[in-house]
Amino acid sequence: VKLLTLARNLQRRKAREREGLFVAEGVRAVEELLRSGLVIHGALASPLLAESERGAALAAALSGRGVDGVTVSESEFASAAGTDSPQGILAIAEAPRRELAGLELGTQARLLLLDAIQDPGNVGTIVRTAAALGATATIALPGTVDLWNAKVVRSSMGALFTHPAISCGTDELESFVGRTGLVVWGADAGGETLGATPPPDRLAIALGNEGNGLSPFVAQLATRTVGVPIGPGIESLNVAVSAGIFLYELRL
Amino acid sequence: VKLLTLARNLQRRKAREREGLFVAEGVRAVEELLRSGLVIHGALASPLLAESERGAALAAALSGRGVDGVTVSESEFASAAGTDSPQGILAIAEAPRRELAGLELGTQARLLLLDAIQDPGNVGTIVRTAAALGATATIALPGTVDLWNAKVVRSSMGALFTHPAISCGTDELESFVGRTGLVVWGADAGGETLGATPPPDRLAIALGNEGNGLSPFVAQLATRTVGVPIGPGIESLNVAVSAGIFLYELRL
Repeated sequence: VKLLTLARNLQRRKAREREGLFVAEGVRAVEELLRSGLVIHGALASPLLAESERGAALAAALSGRGVDGVTVSESEFASAAGTDSPQGILAIAEAPRRELAGLELGTQARLLLLDAIQDPGNVGTIVRTAAALGATATIALPGTVDLWNAKVVRSSMGALFTHPAISCGTDELESFVGRTGLVVWGADAGGETLGATPPPDRLAIALGNEGNGLSPFVAQLATRTVGVPIGPGIESLNVAVSAGIFLYELRL
Repeated sequence: VKLLTLARNLQRRKAREREGLFVAEGVRAVEELLRSGLVIHGALASPLLAESERGAALAAALSGRGVDGVTVSESEFASAAGTDSPQGILAIAEAPRRELAGLELGTQARLLLLDAIQDPGNVGTIVRTAAALGATATIALPGTVDLWNAKVVRSSMGALFTHPAISCGTDELESFVGRTGLVVWGADAGGETLGATPPPDRLAIALGNEGNGLSPFVAQLATRTVGVPIGPGIESLNVAVSAGIFLYELRL
């Protein structure tokens, strides 16, 4: 039951950062976790898991990999699961230590900067999109939801386990930009039409907060603002949809 | 309290279809509803609404438009609200009667076909994206979540009130395709690379179910499958992100 307490504690960002651990919930996420090769610390199951064939196969795979597993009651499981429809399985794993200072860029690179994006579903979908469309890395700036939040993990569909998604502070980003010559363009519906200017070799697109747009720090860092032209009467695109269009248009 | 009962009943698709009514929940959705000019049947508020300035302004706007309004207790309100964090306001409005048979296409047109897409957040985001990127219409085929589901309404950010989003059966779609010469391309990650073939003037992109892809009916209707190339290890793009990339690439 130490795993149960640990899983409950890991619902808080502070505990995740202190322990260097995170929780992956649901059959799909735990399957992806197994595939990723990240170190799995332990797994918590409820009796529900064994009821589906896919769940039973997953339980066998975890045990085959020597993962320390505990079965708890439905209500105990629910107390540790952060999502609405837990499927009776969660795994605790070591978060990869990724630092911006260690990221090397090739001659050409495409990155995303998440500037205070708060919805975990949006952030997870952006990481999934970045991985699918071949982005070099996704950088989460202060004010953005924790990348290892269980809902981000879940909606990234496993992409977070392998795609270089990195949290960093503003000073770190400034040094990185200085070292690599990375050019930052801010996304803004009122910006220059995407496609009008040839992109530089090393480019990051900064995506702002769902309600407030770009922060003053990022607005000052950006050399240009670009946008996808949208029709009248519609305020904006969803931020994950925007990310997809930017990465598609700017693909290498 | 007749409005309270009505709002509760409208949580069910059958009741929405029988009454021709739907519910818009939350400050933002009700503001958009007022702007849209759709006929508002009544509004239900909880004491929470008046606590924010924006909420109080909305209450005043509703009453200024002569909307029949009732204030109920928090718990009564919660019993009628379908979303997780109700902001103390919902409005009941008449769903626009949209029929595929009445849809006229210009020389060039871009449509989306939703083929059994079940997540209401995805469908709402797709409608928002379609409106923003100038799609002609969005057609919901059988198996797709009801367009007037409260979560679809909410995540469409008001786009559903004005963008021609239409539910129809397979027979209706076949007649429409026959009458208009609409060409259907199916979206599939393994399809021809998007951009490789010049698009026809009147084109619909069919987006399949999140798990199962295109239905046999749509697969047979489609003259070609097209996809956005994605990197190894990632199964697919989110369906709303795909919709955005298709509409962007095929924009008129």
